[in-house]
Amino acid sequence: MAAKKKTARKTAARGASKAPRRAGATKKAASKARADAANQRKDAVVLDQIRQAATDVHRDILKRSKPDLAFPVRSLKNVSYSTKRGYFEIGRSKKVRTLTVNTVKSFAQTLRMMGLSKELVETNDFATKRDAYYQSKNWDEARFEEQAESDAVMDDIEALFSIRGTSREQLRFVPDEHGGAVAGRLIVLDPDRETGQVERIDCTRFGSGAYSIPSTVEHLSFETDAKFILAIETGGVFQRLQSHKYWQTADCILVSMAGVPTRATRRFIRKLSDECKLPVYAFVDCDPYGISNIYRTLKVGSGNAAHLSQFFCVPQARYLGVTPEDIVEYQLPTHPLQDVDIKRARDALKNDPFFKTHKPWQKAIEQLLKMGVRAEQQALAKWGLNYVIEEYLPRKLARPAQFLP
Amino acid sequence: MAAKKKTARKTAARGASKAPRRAGATKKAASKARADAANQRKDAVVLDQIRQAATDVHRDILKRSKPDLAFPVRSLKNVSYSTKRGYFEIGRSKKVRTLTVNTVKSFAQTLRMMGLSKELVETNDFATKRDAYYQSKNWDEARFEEQAESDAVMDDIEALFSIRGTSREQLRFVPDEHGGAVAGRLIVLDPDRETGQVERIDCTRFGSGAYSIPSTVEHLSFETDAKFILAIETGGVFQRLQSHKYWQTADCILVSMAGVPTRATRRFIRKLSDECKLPVYAFVDCDPYGISNIYRTLKVGSGNAAHLSQFFCVPQARYLGVTPEDIVEYQLPTHPLQDVDIKRARDALKNDPFFKTHKPWQKAIEQLLKMGVRAEQQALAKWGLNYVIEEYLPRKLARPAQFLP
Repeated sequence: MAAKKKTARKTAARGASKAPRRAGATKKAASKARADAANQRKDAVVLDQIRQAATDVHRDILKRSKPDLAFPVRSLKNVSYSTKRGYFEIGRSKKVRTLTVNTVKSFAQTLRMMGLSKELVETNDFATKRDAYYQSKNWDEARFEEQAESDAVMDDIEALFSIRGTSREQLRFVPDEHGGAVAGRLIVLDPDRETGQVERIDCTRFGSGAYSIPSTVEHLSFETDAKFILAIETGGVFQRLQSHKYWQTADCILVSMAGVPTRATRRFIRKLSDECKLPVYAFVDCDPYGISNIYRTLKVGSGNAAHLSQFFCVPQARYLGVTPEDIVEYQLPTHPLQDVDIKRARDALKNDPFFKTHKPWQKAIEQLLKMGVRAEQQALAKWGLNYVIEEYLPRKLARPAQFLP
Repeated sequence: MAAKKKTARKTAARGASKAPRRAGATKKAASKARADAANQRKDAVVLDQIRQAATDVHRDILKRSKPDLAFPVRSLKNVSYSTKRGYFEIGRSKKVRTLTVNTVKSFAQTLRMMGLSKELVETNDFATKRDAYYQSKNWDEARFEEQAESDAVMDDIEALFSIRGTSREQLRFVPDEHGGAVAGRLIVLDPDRETGQVERIDCTRFGSGAYSIPSTVEHLSFETDAKFILAIETGGVFQRLQSHKYWQTADCILVSMAGVPTRATRRFIRKLSDECKLPVYAFVDCDPYGISNIYRTLKVGSGNAAHLSQFFCVPQARYLGVTPEDIVEYQLPTHPLQDVDIKRARDALKNDPFFKTHKPWQKAIEQLLKMGVRAEQQALAKWGLNYVIEEYLPRKLARPAQFLP
């Protein structure tokens, strides 16, 4: 009987995938055209911005006046928390670098780095920080001696263009590290960099494995009928939910952050959430690190990289758990808070504009400090390995209004 | 004209994928049956081994004699390098733990942990180290107070069963971390843990993303027409080769190790190489860390975990580069060796049985020490971002006999 059922389901699934083939092809072509057009538009804007910045410098030189470049100041003094937008924003302070005898080398390097970016956009290629450093070895006098120097110049350029709404990834400078893992009710559309042909990546079809987010996600688009995105701290919990196909039961998309999420992971979640209007729920350890590093970084960005928040943070994210209240309600096994935990929690209460703005968070962190303990998300395994799937998550998801902000 | 060509290619590809549908279905069913049978056989062996170990203890108790468990000694003194098998092997020394008043708790914990393993195999589930620790909170007097204790017991059990040819993953204790990323000419067959239905994961179809290896790979099998596996140290180089579909040009499978490869990544490469008879080429930074940590761990395992080598190391791996000779030949930009690098290199020459056995490695490491520099694999970007694809790898791959052992 069980076997029969299985076969029936299998046939039905096959039939379903065959039927809308023609409709699927049209849809495919349409989504390819859309993705192509959007990517080309974005690239054209970036090229324009680079040309404009270079033209300004060139014009000054022709006028025999000293050219300059104005970068936003990246110190905490030039950062504010926008309750309306829901993330850290960079202010209007600028530092101006004027071409002088002393700055000629770094000025030239900045322009060459912008030139590299232009080349990368035009050839639809990309470079990591390391790649860019080694490329410079062919720039004669403008070559970098240390990677720290080229990283600093890249950071400057990133800040320069960020105030024009362009991210480092759009300049084709990509991080060296991969993004997190993804599984669930999602199709990722990824146009081939040479042919433009769109690959449709079905994240329900990876068995116990997963989709590994590429280091840049700007060119991706999505199709999904999921109801939410679940962003998970540990690989262990992700693997459990994925192996048990929790995304099927709960109509969702699972993303493994593996600690503090990388740039690519944050950008992927943000883009997916924005474009498909999906709520984002964070599921992390209940400790000051999980709350004020992992969740806070995901949601509002970090103070010393406020110029990135507009691209990378996920202001729509909400905190599903584990909460200090969960520790009591689910009688979770705990560990005592260490000094570093206590310091981090007090810092958040006293100095962090995000936590200072949100009363429920102040209450939660104070409760945690009072209890003097922390709990890991896997502590739910006390009640059975799959308690998290069968009890905890369904109960939580029945009342999303109660999630912490 | 270009557009026409593209359409023609597309249609041809579609036709091709439609034609062998019936043949594909039969093949699919056959491979599913094969995978199922193999997995069931393995599970039966594991259950037998656990029952046997428990029965021995039970029999002793019934005879009113003190039961004991014998674990292989895991110190370096009990390790040797087998040139024939090509990896570190654990010797025959054992430490015997006899049930006494003093050992009663850890003895009980060891048996309960084995009981948990049996349950996991029977329900086709798994647990991470953390999961197992928290599960124990319901074991009354046998519960662990600290995770360090439960980790130690799990390590003991792993060693105990390793001498019977069973790995920790087969006992269903899986690592908390994910494996690396994979792209290329490979189809991974992954049977669903409940229905047994096999998912066919085509690693050529991930666009700029990749297949993320699950934390346990024992249940996977493979189909491939690739000629070799390229194991890559950095995410940056992996992303470059993947985005440019290097696996298509070179008929290969790309695996990103992201530093020292995790257990799952090593096991995945080993299993894939064994089952599909594929050579493995390592492509890492030319420094003592890349050579003696990343490559050595991949190839022969590590001395203090010799009981794992039989499952995890890849003795068939060979070192494609970057070699000290490459630094000279390709005039690569370098960094000076730090004290820690020099210490690591001298250690390898003096104490490591692997490097002591292989003359070409001694020569290479001595050359590196003499030059006093190291080079990263991305240093090839000096000659152009895609020089690695267009020049370096093709030249190297034309002469695999010259790879270091």
